[in-house]
Amino acid sequence: MIKVGYIGLGLMGKPIATNILKAGYPLIVHNRSREVVEKMAALGAESASNPAEVARKVDVVFTNLPDSPDVELVALGKDGIIDGAHDGLILVDNSTIKPASARKIAEKLGKSGVLCLDAPVSGGDIGAQKGTLAIMVGGPEEALEKVRSIFEVIGISITHVGESGAGQIAKAANQIMVAAQMVALGELLIMAKKSGADPEKVIQAIRGGAAQCWALDNKPQRLFEGNRSPGFKAYMQHKDLNIVMDTAREYGIAVPMTAITTQLFGAMLEMGMENLDNSAVIGVIEALSGDSLLD
Amino acid sequence: MIKVGYIGLGLMGKPIATNILKAGYPLIVHNRSREVVEKMAALGAESASNPAEVARKVDVVFTNLPDSPDVELVALGKDGIIDGAHDGLILVDNSTIKPASARKIAEKLGKSGVLCLDAPVSGGDIGAQKGTLAIMVGGPEEALEKVRSIFEVIGISITHVGESGAGQIAKAANQIMVAAQMVALGELLIMAKKSGADPEKVIQAIRGGAAQCWALDNKPQRLFEGNRSPGFKAYMQHKDLNIVMDTAREYGIAVPMTAITTQLFGAMLEMGMENLDNSAVIGVIEALSGDSLLD
Repeated sequence: MIKVGYIGLGLMGKPIATNILKAGYPLIVHNRSREVVEKMAALGAESASNPAEVARKVDVVFTNLPDSPDVELVALGKDGIIDGAHDGLILVDNSTIKPASARKIAEKLGKSGVLCLDAPVSGGDIGAQKGTLAIMVGGPEEALEKVRSIFEVIGISITHVGESGAGQIAKAANQIMVAAQMVALGELLIMAKKSGADPEKVIQAIRGGAAQCWALDNKPQRLFEGNRSPGFKAYMQHKDLNIVMDTAREYGIAVPMTAITTQLFGAMLEMGMENLDNSAVIGVIEALSGDSLLD
Repeated sequence: MIKVGYIGLGLMGKPIATNILKAGYPLIVHNRSREVVEKMAALGAESASNPAEVARKVDVVFTNLPDSPDVELVALGKDGIIDGAHDGLILVDNSTIKPASARKIAEKLGKSGVLCLDAPVSGGDIGAQKGTLAIMVGGPEEALEKVRSIFEVIGISITHVGESGAGQIAKAANQIMVAAQMVALGELLIMAKKSGADPEKVIQAIRGGAAQCWALDNKPQRLFEGNRSPGFKAYMQHKDLNIVMDTAREYGIAVPMTAITTQLFGAMLEMGMENLDNSAVIGVIEALSGDSLLD
């Protein structure tokens, strides 16, 4: 059986690693905080003291970390995966990071015989728990085929987008659209409210037509109930939009609308709403308009 | 049987009026250009020389005109509906205009005993031909009940949003979301292209998740085939966004993202792309990024 390592047991990493373990794969874990490692050990996982040790002992090592520098450090830093690299090792990075970072890691680890897949996911912590994530994969097809059986344990949609970095590009593309829908929802609800129409009736009138989208289908009812809890946290949305903006700068791409959505999510953080749902960006529109959806 | 008038036999008005006529309602039409009037006459419609004459002879008069000043002129100007107003007359405006204009017309005609419904539609010329439009209605419920049987001939979804202007507010809300989706689609496709991923694979990877929307479902294939023909014309999208911006100014609403989408559709017009589909706003992103989706 393929031996698996998982580094980074956070909100997403822990349930993904748990599903891999429950599917019967021998699992070695590593995480900065020890508490979650002990919980995984109680379920039957082995633990390792650093990423190099994990890499040395497994066939496939997963990473799931907050941001690009974290993944670069775990992959390429002291006692990192590079120090435990061996021929045929596969690195699967489930983090959402910059495509350029994914490419850099793949290139450097490639010199030590490691095959790298960038494999960011969407579907949230619920999807991670249920094993119903969408996985967007960049990197060599042969590596994907070797780990496909593991991917099928954690997700229901697996798309090979292209070479290294392509999975991250797909995730960034996803976030451009998600952010646009969330901000549009906020603007149209406050426009309805302040110009004197019933926002709930407006949603009812438009949800089935050309405006139809995931955000319109899933978020208005929560907002009408005064529920702005996550869901997908605003600071994560902002982090992912910054990946888009960094990518735009690196490759010379104009994203004028995403520049604005990034600014609005940035404002949301400054206003103390960083742990609310991404649909709560309506709070920025409310503040700018001197009104609120519910009053 | 209710006698019906229809003023404005353009891309949308003509098929709507034709459906009303085919359903058996006696129909009197008026239009600036005579050619289409003669076509409708050949189908059995009567014609009138001005809006006042139409209003005088019917129980319900429809209007379907390009913009707010056109509707105001036909409703309130010389030889306008106001000059043929009679107690119990119902005005149904299928145009997409400013909520504030709809309210002004309803107030002024109300003094002559006319009940006004703002009833913009979505679904395009195909929906108009098939009688499958979504109709967003503002104005008195009693007037809506009197014309509901006619609405059922032209649309399949009829939502009473609220008082006068509320139908137009819903339509404006619809256009905020539609424009956001179209621009997001353009930005994410060019980001994918220029950062080195296959745009078709990127769409495949994201279309089923939290980014899902009408634009992602319906537009990418056309763009990949090099087809930027309408669909919904860019200058109409721009006109509708200007209604949002006017409404935002009149009622004091911040719509920072729509300010940008309006600018991008405005740029599209200046670049000579006014008669292309609204999804062709990707052409602006291409120009700004010095790249193109297909090359």
